[in-house]
Amino acid sequence: MKFTDRLWPKVEHLWDSYLDHPFVKGIGDGSLETEKFQHWLKQDYVYLVEYARLMAVGAEKSPDLEAMGMFTELLHGTLFVEMELHRKFSNAYDISVASLENTEASAVNTAYTSYMLNHAQRGDAAVATACLLCCAWSYNYIGKGLSGGDGYNVSNPYKEWIDMYAGEEFTDLTQTALNLMNRLADGKPERELQHLEEIIIKTGLYEYMFWDMCEQREEWPVNI
Amino acid sequence: MKFTDRLWPKVEHLWDSYLDHPFVKGIGDGSLETEKFQHWLKQDYVYLVEYARLMAVGAEKSPDLEAMGMFTELLHGTLFVEMELHRKFSNAYDISVASLENTEASAVNTAYTSYMLNHAQRGDAAVATACLLCCAWSYNYIGKGLSGGDGYNVSNPYKEWIDMYAGEEFTDLTQTALNLMNRLADGKPERELQHLEEIIIKTGLYEYMFWDMCEQREEWPVNI
Amino acid sequence: MKFTDRLWPKVEHLWDSYLDHPFVKGIGDGSLETEKFQHWLKQDYVYLVEYARLMAVGAEKSPDLEAMGMFTELLHGTLFVEMELHRKFSNAYDISVASLENTEASAVNTAYTSYMLNHAQRGDAAVATACLLCCAWSYNYIGKGLSGGDGYNVSNPYKEWIDMYAGEEFTDLTQTALNLMNRLADGKPERELQHLEEIIIKTGLYEYMFWDMCEQREEWPVNI
Amino acid sequence: MKFTDRLWPKVEHLWDSYLDHPFVKGIGDGSLETEKFQHWLKQDYVYLVEYARLMAVGAEKSPDLEAMGMFTELLHGTLFVEMELHRKFSNAYDISVASLENTEASAVNTAYTSYMLNHAQRGDAAVATACLLCCAWSYNYIGKGLSGGDGYNVSNPYKEWIDMYAGEEFTDLTQTALNLMNRLADGKPERELQHLEEIIIKTGLYEYMFWDMCEQREEWPVNI
Repeated sequence: MKFTDRLWPKVEHLWDSYLDHPFVKGIGDGSLETEKFQHWLKQDYVYLVEYARLMAVGAEKSPDLEAMGMFTELLHGTLFVEMELHRKFSNAYDISVASLENTEASAVNTAYTSYMLNHAQRGDAAVATACLLCCAWSYNYIGKGLSGGDGYNVSNPYKEWIDMYAGEEFTDLTQTALNLMNRLADGKPERELQHLEEIIIKTGLYEYMFWDMCEQREEWPVNI
Repeated sequence: MKFTDRLWPKVEHLWDSYLDHPFVKGIGDGSLETEKFQHWLKQDYVYLVEYARLMAVGAEKSPDLEAMGMFTELLHGTLFVEMELHRKFSNAYDISVASLENTEASAVNTAYTSYMLNHAQRGDAAVATACLLCCAWSYNYIGKGLSGGDGYNVSNPYKEWIDMYAGEEFTDLTQTALNLMNRLADGKPERELQHLEEIIIKTGLYEYMFWDMCEQREEWPVNI
Repeated sequence: MKFTDRLWPKVEHLWDSYLDHPFVKGIGDGSLETEKFQHWLKQDYVYLVEYARLMAVGAEKSPDLEAMGMFTELLHGTLFVEMELHRKFSNAYDISVASLENTEASAVNTAYTSYMLNHAQRGDAAVATACLLCCAWSYNYIGKGLSGGDGYNVSNPYKEWIDMYAGEEFTDLTQTALNLMNRLADGKPERELQHLEEIIIKTGLYEYMFWDMCEQREEWPVNI
Repeated sequence: MKFTDRLWPKVEHLWDSYLDHPFVKGIGDGSLETEKFQHWLKQDYVYLVEYARLMAVGAEKSPDLEAMGMFTELLHGTLFVEMELHRKFSNAYDISVASLENTEASAVNTAYTSYMLNHAQRGDAAVATACLLCCAWSYNYIGKGLSGGDGYNVSNPYKEWIDMYAGEEFTDLTQTALNLMNRLADGKPERELQHLEEIIIKTGLYEYMFWDMCEQREEWPVNI
């Protein structure tokens, strides 16, 4: 059995709970307040910098040229395509590039990227891939879920967002990551498979907390 | 000027705010509910495993034998002295060794240790030392603050706890860490000093959030 | 003074000694035996895999988006342009892609890439850049040196090789690396500058040993 | 089958070749020139600093407290017992502590420690253990081999050296490392087991090259 097949029953209801989250539902039916979406745009931008760093760790740890090439294309695409799209998107929501770059990562955002980078730096390429997987996979799942929903129509201001994550290109990227995960996990002993599962479940919880953080427009619970 | 002297004004009121925190005040006057202290004992135990790991990173990154020796003694002392004391202390509070070892790190605990280990693995020995500093320093500060307070007397069930962190041995250990921080930061360019400061301030926020987590007996905000 | 300006007098005669090395002179006047050049093609191919890995480490350690972008472009260019050129070049010398990919790195090759990757993983972005610098810089220096020599003419079978490393694109790439080195070294304390210098000098020795290894067509001094 | 049992036939004749090496034979029959032994003492001292660093990497990567404790005891013992013994031993051979500490690692020494630290930093705890294994194991094998030889008697000036590596304490330490290797390798897929084997075989070659380096009193093949 593929690793992601044995994993799926353990994350399915978590993935589904995203679709019930107020922020995600607000994107789905177009009712999400602009301020909340702006919070996501800014937090996601600084998230992407650390997510790109994670891809660099993956490239560094790659056991073969094929994996190294895949991580490198992801890294290059994130830095030079996805972040550029993000800047253009943000501009349409009155967020300047300077504002994006000066965003301080919130507590949840920091916890999430720190968790991934800690484990990826310490582990092997399979661990780095496990760290990377949930974000891509769950956004694709959400995109597909919302694109089949009632609110998916031309009057939804977030239609372009939904299309991006439901689209063929992002679906292919997700599939590439899933394939690599299965290849690197193949034949691993049970104790290592459980560790990979734990990482994917924990990053899944962080995804939920990230939506919550955007819904609440949270930064840090304490200040200095 | 020593690095920790320029840093001090930026963290002093954060350090002081610990002394006003309900959990810390409860230790100080002996009124802290046992359940909250038990939560701390369990969470701190699994924290120490990752804190020990951080010391191993410090040893790995050390630019000279003196620094490597210091990190190694800290690591050895944490694993074979401090954690043993923790096990004995926990036993007195009806927490078995198995219960300690099976504790799942809470969200705040995970965020804190992930933050330190992420930066320490990625940075140089000065960064690893900055990650380590706040925990030791602030516990020593709290111990000293509480040992001069009204509730510090033989009827306080937490007197032994206060004595440990206020005591000479822990004070020396803190001073050793401060000295190493100053030695490794000496002459660094402003951009790197600011990065070290940011790490110490952020870990200071995590310390506050850790006390809050224990006061509220929090685990994870979402479950799967 | 820029870091690379203070460094230059310490490496100049080493850089110059490359131009006196039999292998490099053989490229310069076109007299190099094909077998020796084939040895270089194979060894350099597996070197590039580890050199790309080093660029991934640089991207991971980058203190800002600009540095991360630079390392990512170098990494992407190495994997998808330079190595592709290498495969085409090797094909012209009767070396199949399979033969390239199955090449075992020689002792000197392994020592060189291990040295760079060890220091880069353990250090900060300045250290990673120092590890990277010598290979690019010295090849550009050699290319320029040879392109001004007597043997540089259309009958030299290695003219294309010389043109590549002396050309504008490779010169720009080298300048980008030098600029990043100077930016990251700027203001560093003397003890760290000396460490950066040591790395660049040692990698310079490894470059010399690499030419020697190709001249002698060495693999490992002992076998099992 | 234990991992080290499947490994043994692949390294046995390499291990045996150490016993035929002039340097090792010179220790075995007491005929080794003092200058060569002094070269070993100095090179091995700076080797131990990096070997200790490798143990710190192992502690950092440990998947559980038991492994972390083992690496920490090895690290602590290396820094505070073995290196102290080395300093005393060197003193008897007219090598000052300053001379030990100022020794520049030779090319072979640098290649060996760079190789181990590169792989250990990039891999998981099993990889770190594989990097560590050969040095301890082969010294114990040599110690035992020599202690059964003709030259093993009170007039051999290197009897104490032989006793140390053949002795119960060093044998136990070796067994601890072998047990950890088997535990961490257990159930790993074939591709990962082959990678672990490659590391142990390569470090075995480096051991041979290290004896050669001491026999020839080599430093670097080129100088600047």
